[in-house]
Amino acid sequence: MVPTCVPPSHSGGFVFRLYISPSTITSLYGHTKQNKTTQHKQQFITTMSSGQVIRCKAAVAREPGKPLVIEEVEVAPPQKMEVRLKIHFTSLCHTDVYFWEAKGQHPLFPRILGHEAGGIVESVGEGVTELKPGDKVLPIFTGECGECRHCKSEESNMCDLLRINTDRGVMINDGKTRFSKDGQPIYHFLGTSTFSEYTVVHSGCVAKINPDAPLDKVCVLSCGISTGMGATLNVAKPKKGMSVAIFGLGAVGLAAAEGARIAGASRIIGIDLNPSRAKEAMKFGVTEFVNPKDHDKPIHEVIAAMTDGGVDRSVECTGNVKAMISAFECVHDGWGVAVLVGVPNKDDEFKTLPINFLNERTLKGTFFGNYKPRTDIPGVVEKYMNKELEVEKFITHTIGFSEINKAFDYMLKGE
Amino acid sequence: MVPTCVPPSHSGGFVFRLYISPSTITSLYGHTKQNKTTQHKQQFITTMSSGQVIRCKAAVAREPGKPLVIEEVEVAPPQKMEVRLKIHFTSLCHTDVYFWEAKGQHPLFPRILGHEAGGIVESVGEGVTELKPGDKVLPIFTGECGECRHCKSEESNMCDLLRINTDRGVMINDGKTRFSKDGQPIYHFLGTSTFSEYTVVHSGCVAKINPDAPLDKVCVLSCGISTGMGATLNVAKPKKGMSVAIFGLGAVGLAAAEGARIAGASRIIGIDLNPSRAKEAMKFGVTEFVNPKDHDKPIHEVIAAMTDGGVDRSVECTGNVKAMISAFECVHDGWGVAVLVGVPNKDDEFKTLPINFLNERTLKGTFFGNYKPRTDIPGVVEKYMNKELEVEKFITHTIGFSEINKAFDYMLKGE
Repeated sequence: MVPTCVPPSHSGGFVFRLYISPSTITSLYGHTKQNKTTQHKQQFITTMSSGQVIRCKAAVAREPGKPLVIEEVEVAPPQKMEVRLKIHFTSLCHTDVYFWEAKGQHPLFPRILGHEAGGIVESVGEGVTELKPGDKVLPIFTGECGECRHCKSEESNMCDLLRINTDRGVMINDGKTRFSKDGQPIYHFLGTSTFSEYTVVHSGCVAKINPDAPLDKVCVLSCGISTGMGATLNVAKPKKGMSVAIFGLGAVGLAAAEGARIAGASRIIGIDLNPSRAKEAMKFGVTEFVNPKDHDKPIHEVIAAMTDGGVDRSVECTGNVKAMISAFECVHDGWGVAVLVGVPNKDDEFKTLPINFLNERTLKGTFFGNYKPRTDIPGVVEKYMNKELEVEKFITHTIGFSEINKAFDYMLKGE
Repeated sequence: MVPTCVPPSHSGGFVFRLYISPSTITSLYGHTKQNKTTQHKQQFITTMSSGQVIRCKAAVAREPGKPLVIEEVEVAPPQKMEVRLKIHFTSLCHTDVYFWEAKGQHPLFPRILGHEAGGIVESVGEGVTELKPGDKVLPIFTGECGECRHCKSEESNMCDLLRINTDRGVMINDGKTRFSKDGQPIYHFLGTSTFSEYTVVHSGCVAKINPDAPLDKVCVLSCGISTGMGATLNVAKPKKGMSVAIFGLGAVGLAAAEGARIAGASRIIGIDLNPSRAKEAMKFGVTEFVNPKDHDKPIHEVIAAMTDGGVDRSVECTGNVKAMISAFECVHDGWGVAVLVGVPNKDDEFKTLPINFLNERTLKGTFFGNYKPRTDIPGVVEKYMNKELEVEKFITHTIGFSEINKAFDYMLKGE
């Protein structure tokens, strides 16, 4: 089980936002100029489609590594504890690319990828009481049943029932898919499959957010940005004035830096092998940039020398096991806390001398920034609404849904 | 640097209390029957000895592994920020034996060992304002200067100035010893050297305790018991009703179990290779005993099976690196916290798969149970005074000071 959807290797690029059906957002909430015809059409669909199969466009991954095919698919109605969503915006995460390439995993095709998105509830299945058609939501790749020991624990968000499952391509209610074409099933991905105009999601994987939140912005909060920011704010918990090192300045690492900025860190040291990231990182609160290639000494020693013995907190967002070890060994004895976010290769071992722990360092890992999806993600959206969190700077490209393969190309090229 | 005085290998035995000068305790505080003559004599010494060299008995380790020699030594007056203590009771810790054996360390002889003790301030040096003659105190092997970043941090007790130093045999003020015989220096040990009727200690290494506290009991709180109990109460922090696994049921592990009992743990699982420890451990709140030798499966799997996925907290008190790894891997994902206390061999490596962290486990180490010596140890004594903490059950032998070598024999035989 991969516990989070952070890329398994040194993370690249920022967030790509895919524009699926922007007119509908405006039609339902009317905050910006809208097309009356679209509005009426959308309301009609919302009213009449409930309980019916919807035919809509989706980007289907039919074979590993081959371009996605935009085609018309059937989306069945939601069953017990499920909701059907109209997706308005989705972004592309390296994890989508990783499972699309299907290197080293059990391949599951045809599949509809996508898990960072924003949408509107179209209809709800039996037993769903906390969501209703028209609710503005973020689907989340991991869930919160509210009933299990994890959901009841203040310390965990790793729901027993709805925890991320990268191998499962079906809904848990009946073990079947809700997507099909010409009677043939198309598999789900991470319980979200947001590369589709409509998708069916377990209601425990849906965060109901502020109806005023602009989906074209907050769609990016449903995975990597929350993961990085939460790793800092919820797990590393730097106090005002503390120093924080961030390993890896991809989207997750930059979000971790944003978390450090929000927490009032005095120094935010960004570490990345790619020198071109230095300038961009400054926008995210990074105050100093260190490239391990520029130093002969181990990077944890470089950081210790810069910080009189070590940083107060560190957050590792690359998934490289050597970086994990450095991130741990670079925190100050007595009070240092290191947080692991990046997912390593399966067999990589974390190794260190126990004295590094006995000197009162702490090492923790996090999954989705320790946010409980339904309970906490609405609050992350509020941080954006309150102008505490700047989301716009994470968005590098806006691409029409029909050009989704371009986004894959950009990400693979690291643009 | 050894960060704590926990035995470096699987810890054995309970606490030996050495009876140095019990009549003086009663004479100064008068709570029990006393010898009037002794009382007057003691008061005379307290008044008249200040600023003078005191001649008294000490158990001197003259050669590695050879019996200690009880001899008369000279104890110089305390210098700047130092205090001279009359030791009333001392106990024997495995660390004393370890440095007496001097295997694998730079030997420093002749030396006065001993670091778990209780006594009375006899006189104070220049600049000491928080202690005065007559104060009842515990000398502590690590200190609290109150000024450094560690002392100012809420999270650390690893004072930059007075942190444990097992190699230093002199006082930091002038780099010299306060003990001598016939003009030849005798070295200090851990800044305490309590196997002596009088000793000189940095004032930052002295916890002033409740004058009503019985030194024959609370003397054992100045090292191992506080270390184990603090590891649970201050670092693992189990909530009421949680399950706690304790690896190693020596004095430190039993104190960790006592901490779990005080915290209201519902299950306290003791793990030890020695089956004879099972019965004794029940006195310390251990509810279940597991001997890894009785199982074919790795012990972390045994514990996971007993506890529906893992314990909520674990505390490792053996110093065996395999036990450390098991203690980490046996905690529940989502919220499990493992705390390392035992000191391993220098080159032993801690190894685990990073996924064990990414599943939201936490690993921390602790030094002296995260207690700040001067600030917190008086409160530990209060726990005993309030009958919250049972100290008596840790004491297995009471031996006269002149028979100190017997205590070493008992400990070596594990009696």
